Amino acid sequence: MAVKVKGMYDLYGEKAQEFLALEKFLTALFRLYNYEYFRTPNLEYSEVFHRDGEFSDAVTKETYNFKDKGNRNLTLRPEGTAGLVRSYIENKLYADNELKKYYYLGPNYRYERPQKGRFREFYQFGVEVLGTKNPAIDAEVIALAYKTVNLLGLKNIVVKINSLGDTDSKSNYEKALKFYFKDKIDNLCDDCHERYLNNPLRILDCKIDAGKKEITNAPKSRDYLTNSSKEYFLKTLEIINLLQIKYIVDDNLVRGLDYYTEIVFEIVADIQGFGNANTLGGGGRYDNLVKELGGPSVSAIGYSFGVERLLMALEESNIKLQEESFLDAYLLVMDGKFYPKGLEIIEQLRDNQLKAELNYMSTNFKTSLKKALLQKPRYLIFLGEEELQAGFLTVKNTLTETQEKVVLSKLVNYIKGV
Amino acid sequence: MAVKVKGMYDLYGEKAQEFLALEKFLTALFRLYNYEYFRTPNLEYSEVFHRDGEFSDAVTKETYNFKDKGNRNLTLRPEGTAGLVRSYIENKLYADNELKKYYYLGPNYRYERPQKGRFREFYQFGVEVLGTKNPAIDAEVIALAYKTVNLLGLKNIVVKINSLGDTDSKSNYEKALKFYFKDKIDNLCDDCHERYLNNPLRILDCKIDAGKKEITNAPKSRDYLTNSSKEYFLKTLEIINLLQIKYIVDDNLVRGLDYYTEIVFEIVADIQGFGNANTLGGGGRYDNLVKELGGPSVSAIGYSFGVERLLMALEESNIKLQEESFLDAYLLVMDGKFYPKGLEIIEQLRDNQLKAELNYMSTNFKTSLKKALLQKPRYLIFLGEEELQAGFLTVKNTLTETQEKVVLSKLVNYIKGV
Repeated sequence: MAVKVKGMYDLYGEKAQEFLALEKFLTALFRLYNYEYFRTPNLEYSEVFHRDGEFSDAVTKETYNFKDKGNRNLTLRPEGTAGLVRSYIENKLYADNELKKYYYLGPNYRYERPQKGRFREFYQFGVEVLGTKNPAIDAEVIALAYKTVNLLGLKNIVVKINSLGDTDSKSNYEKALKFYFKDKIDNLCDDCHERYLNNPLRILDCKIDAGKKEITNAPKSRDYLTNSSKEYFLKTLEIINLLQIKYIVDDNLVRGLDYYTEIVFEIVADIQGFGNANTLGGGGRYDNLVKELGGPSVSAIGYSFGVERLLMALEESNIKLQEESFLDAYLLVMDGKFYPKGLEIIEQLRDNQLKAELNYMSTNFKTSLKKALLQKPRYLIFLGEEELQAGFLTVKNTLTETQEKVVLSKLVNYIKGV
Repeated sequence: MAVKVKGMYDLYGEKAQEFLALEKFLTALFRLYNYEYFRTPNLEYSEVFHRDGEFSDAVTKETYNFKDKGNRNLTLRPEGTAGLVRSYIENKLYADNELKKYYYLGPNYRYERPQKGRFREFYQFGVEVLGTKNPAIDAEVIALAYKTVNLLGLKNIVVKINSLGDTDSKSNYEKALKFYFKDKIDNLCDDCHERYLNNPLRILDCKIDAGKKEITNAPKSRDYLTNSSKEYFLKTLEIINLLQIKYIVDDNLVRGLDYYTEIVFEIVADIQGFGNANTLGGGGRYDNLVKELGGPSVSAIGYSFGVERLLMALEESNIKLQEESFLDAYLLVMDGKFYPKGLEIIEQLRDNQLKAELNYMSTNFKTSLKKALLQKPRYLIFLGEEELQAGFLTVKNTLTETQEKVVLSKLVNYIKGV
């Protein structure tokens, strides 16, 4: 028997309904905020993720990489930002000098040990705003991230926020961290040794070493901010405060991806037993990524959320997303010879925006009635010899359990209740 | 500069709006017909597509295949049916003995020479109905496929239909074709030589040899149908006729995939200059695929449409799918110091379901007014020193060009027009 790829999952039934409901909610919200849908291929040339001089645990070790027949390196995208930025540059979307506000929702891939709630094909949604650097935009993006989960009904949402500062601030801070960790690195995990060489900031968000005094006593990024970065941070905090968004400044927040500059943030829920999984989403500003990928010097900010984790958080909080969509009518033909007429009738209902079904599986009365009731139709319609002869249908209201004879020409209005 | 993977495409702007509008239309239509959303991973173990004893040009030559670190063969799915059937079996969705009606919409991959309108990552939607064999279901599926394009506004849609018959019919027919083509195969193309050995039916749908007398004079599948297959075909035609769906029986219709048995069909448009691209979608019944993939003996029927081709057909027919979604209000702050207040105001509008935007890029009056008008807002809102002092906003109706002073507490209702 064929099986699904290890670490991936199939979506159907109630879970699929939840996904569709979330997608609908997000589409409406992003539209309200004037964000446009953006979709890039799930596959990119590897150089989009493995950038010169850049290093990120997530993209070098944990991606699906392979060569095409032309010997080019391809990668199934591990995240949504780099591909969108690649597209922004390639399609010269910066050329009109307008602010671009985009959102996306799609699959990402990471080749890591599968764990509960972490899949090798996972869905993310997020936004990217490209074109200017303005604390009001940072505040809008943070407000939108906050509201996404807040409007879904999750309680006690907090924004964790920090500033890594601009390129100068970040480079000073990295030097300070290297100096500080020089004689302490032996007390930290193996991955941190590598991080020390390539991206010392990431030591601060090591899950293994979290809580060790070497980490908690490390220098804080906000002590290395240039004046303009400090001002940018304070201005952003002022605005999100005005928007009544609950936030806490978290000195150890650096985010997993190395392209962030200035503001970084995470949206954190408060679900018991969820631990680190309470971090539902996060993002930050990136001043240099567009240039690094070959574009002009354009500053941008974005965030992303994991769909599976968010749906898990909603389930854990007893928040039901999907609208139940019951059938308006289930038509039961009493004999195989009535299928053509039966289908003709339910097609007519559907043409009038009524959701209708037919007993395709069996014409045995008991069996098909049982199957029909499982789908909770508002009306049962019976079509048998008697009905066809006399030119009417027997229609039963499943709620009131009353039954009436209805002529075909009146059926649509009868079911519509008009 | 990084570029997109050859043969793939980015989706944004108007095209992205069209895609969303199509998705919304389909979701509503499938719901009306009681089909459930189903999503499988975009990646499957290769054996899902490369089945024992089976052969299909599309899946052996033209797929993206690679090995994971555990040396297992993976394939980016070239079509939607096999993965869904794999999932149906693996998740034992047949166990309750109910009819299952599913739809899907997602990316597929094929490694072939890119051509106009044919991409290496392309989107398909489709349905699969698993669980029973009943001409009324075949008719419903064909009606749904027909209506999909008909309701979108495409004119002169025709269903091409044929029957390959059940396994016995098909095997008799294949023998007849092998016998017939034995001394004619040298007049046909190289691919047809391979098809002769592996799947002689596919010779009939060769694009290179189409129209040659060797093809047009070939034996017809309907002459090799068993009695029950003949009856099944006629019954299906009777019902789609009753549903007033225009169809023509096409003897040479065999479909590209080899798992079909009994009914096969295509939905064909009539767009000038579109040639073969007029075939917008198609499908058929498959009696053996569930079993072949390791499941029980369950008959099923499905169809699929290519999204890119369908959108091209709509464009060519001057059918606009997307609803234009203009801004309700664009707020212009007259100085950078008003950003916090400005954002607070537009957040309030958004909280009240009004689509609103702010001049994040520039506070220069002329520049920002120009940018604002490009987005065709219903109202312009001005916030400057005068307004802030006096406690009102200047609101301009962009249609009537009239301007009023509105106090903040009345702004939402003013924009809503209540």
